[in-house]
Amino acid sequence: MVICHALTGSHHAAGLYEGENKPGWWDGLIGSGKTIDTDKYYVISTNVIGSCFGSTGPMSPMAPSYEAARYKFPVVTIKDMVKAQRILFDKLGLHSVYAIVGGSMGGMQALQFAIHYPNFAQKIIALATTYATQPWAIAFNKVAQEAILKDPDFKKGYYEAKDIKENGLAGMAVGRMAGHISFLSHASMQSKFGREYKRNDGLFELFGKFQVESYLEYNGYNFTKWFDPLTYLYITKAINIFDLERGFDSLSDALREITSKLYMVSFEKDMLFAPQEMEVIRDELIAIGNNNHSYLAVKSDYGHDAFLVELDKFDTYIKEALDG
Amino acid sequence: MVICHALTGSHHAAGLYEGENKPGWWDGLIGSGKTIDTDKYYVISTNVIGSCFGSTGPMSPMAPSYEAARYKFPVVTIKDMVKAQRILFDKLGLHSVYAIVGGSMGGMQALQFAIHYPNFAQKIIALATTYATQPWAIAFNKVAQEAILKDPDFKKGYYEAKDIKENGLAGMAVGRMAGHISFLSHASMQSKFGREYKRNDGLFELFGKFQVESYLEYNGYNFTKWFDPLTYLYITKAINIFDLERGFDSLSDALREITSKLYMVSFEKDMLFAPQEMEVIRDELIAIGNNNHSYLAVKSDYGHDAFLVELDKFDTYIKEALDG
Repeated sequence: MVICHALTGSHHAAGLYEGENKPGWWDGLIGSGKTIDTDKYYVISTNVIGSCFGSTGPMSPMAPSYEAARYKFPVVTIKDMVKAQRILFDKLGLHSVYAIVGGSMGGMQALQFAIHYPNFAQKIIALATTYATQPWAIAFNKVAQEAILKDPDFKKGYYEAKDIKENGLAGMAVGRMAGHISFLSHASMQSKFGREYKRNDGLFELFGKFQVESYLEYNGYNFTKWFDPLTYLYITKAINIFDLERGFDSLSDALREITSKLYMVSFEKDMLFAPQEMEVIRDELIAIGNNNHSYLAVKSDYGHDAFLVELDKFDTYIKEALDG
Repeated sequence: MVICHALTGSHHAAGLYEGENKPGWWDGLIGSGKTIDTDKYYVISTNVIGSCFGSTGPMSPMAPSYEAARYKFPVVTIKDMVKAQRILFDKLGLHSVYAIVGGSMGGMQALQFAIHYPNFAQKIIALATTYATQPWAIAFNKVAQEAILKDPDFKKGYYEAKDIKENGLAGMAVGRMAGHISFLSHASMQSKFGREYKRNDGLFELFGKFQVESYLEYNGYNFTKWFDPLTYLYITKAINIFDLERGFDSLSDALREITSKLYMVSFEKDMLFAPQEMEVIRDELIAIGNNNHSYLAVKSDYGHDAFLVELDKFDTYIKEALDG
């Protein structure tokens, strides 16, 4: 079984690495006896091409100088990410898998696998994703990209990776703050933070902070210690230009390629990849007479990140999809 | 009649100024023969305290040195804005008005007038606003504030105003881009921009742009030519700490002060000040037995900016509120 990761995720989908204390991003779902049961399934997850956690990306050394590629790295697409994984699996002698599962950008990969390599997986499970990235999501990525590009410490792309890791990059922190808004919802922010103010900050101080501000600041600046800014530009670009229809005359023509059973999960308050975007796929599948699909619209206030957080709202669905 | 403006608005609510070709921000609503009919009503609009369009703000000269106040300017609240207007009206010999109308931060002022000066206006009309700013809105303001603060050209607040006007301020542009997302909705962005790409940009170029990116960039950078960054920090702070309940034991205690007839308008897809926030006020009014209010929930896909754009969806309501 293949697990595909999202924008800032990695191949570390579950379990603990030696010497670390942070489990993988879907640890609640994947493991011995869990929904994706590693006693039953052999689970593979790879770092996407373009990323900064092991795969080749813009900061990888490039021939002939073996300096970081930076802007010489080509724009990659979700299709390229899938193709790169397929080449790896071929080398491993893996010519088909039982299922491919992913959320957000991971869901894009799962769908792209389904269309581009229709005989590769028996089952495709795509969560919190879309048929083509919509302007709401592109706009959030734009804020982050622009904030990175205009930060003088980004040095127009010619920064030293260790300087960013040590000192952070305010522009990327600002962008990540915008990202965090897009991962949540009006309702989940309200229940998570309310109007709580930082205990020692004065309400009438210009720089006094609400808890939500403190949360964004912490997560924004922390992010710049573990993520690479050029990688952020390249992966958000891949997300922005994602469109299942590309290379086909229509979305339905693209979807006609699918032979796997397709499972789709959307989350009610997800604005980044809204339920109606996934319903476009569902409706097209019905229109072309595909009876080999299933759709779960999860009731949730959480927002996009529900696919990482509210596992109990869809774990039974996934378990039945896999074991049923 | 008093018109209250929003975050980046000004006293220029309607009509053309000599030598300019951009009418006021509510020109479609206010004027001879229009919804707010200047043949019938004498319409006053003032620039809020803290703003950069004539009123005293952080860039105003301050005694004894008469240099720009900058951080010596105190944090102002919506209540301060209302109080400053009330003092001005007193000096003008105006001790009551027929109506106060405002949207967004203007609506906050209208509500604050209703509670703080209950005998001042016969009618209060508040659109696209809230009883207390929620974390979703605070989070967007945070992105903008942080982007401004971390821009080296902001010079930690000690910039020359003319440098910003001439060269722009990337940080404020980034913040404004985030703002524009919050003014729209997923649906309105989809219908406004779709996935249209800039005609001469390559889809697989890292810096190629979707129309939505081009729109954000244009509006973001243009904004820095006509708005002041310290003012942005101060006014967003005023919005963030806005809470009608402050100074009372409860929201209902605050609302009990109101004697004016209160008209409220919300817009379905407004996430910045969501309909349910205005419904908190409506529900409290009902609970305390206030029969002197009215509420219109406008069906709209547009988002927060509907109060500036979709005038035809509420102009009849306002006309009846005023003339009825």
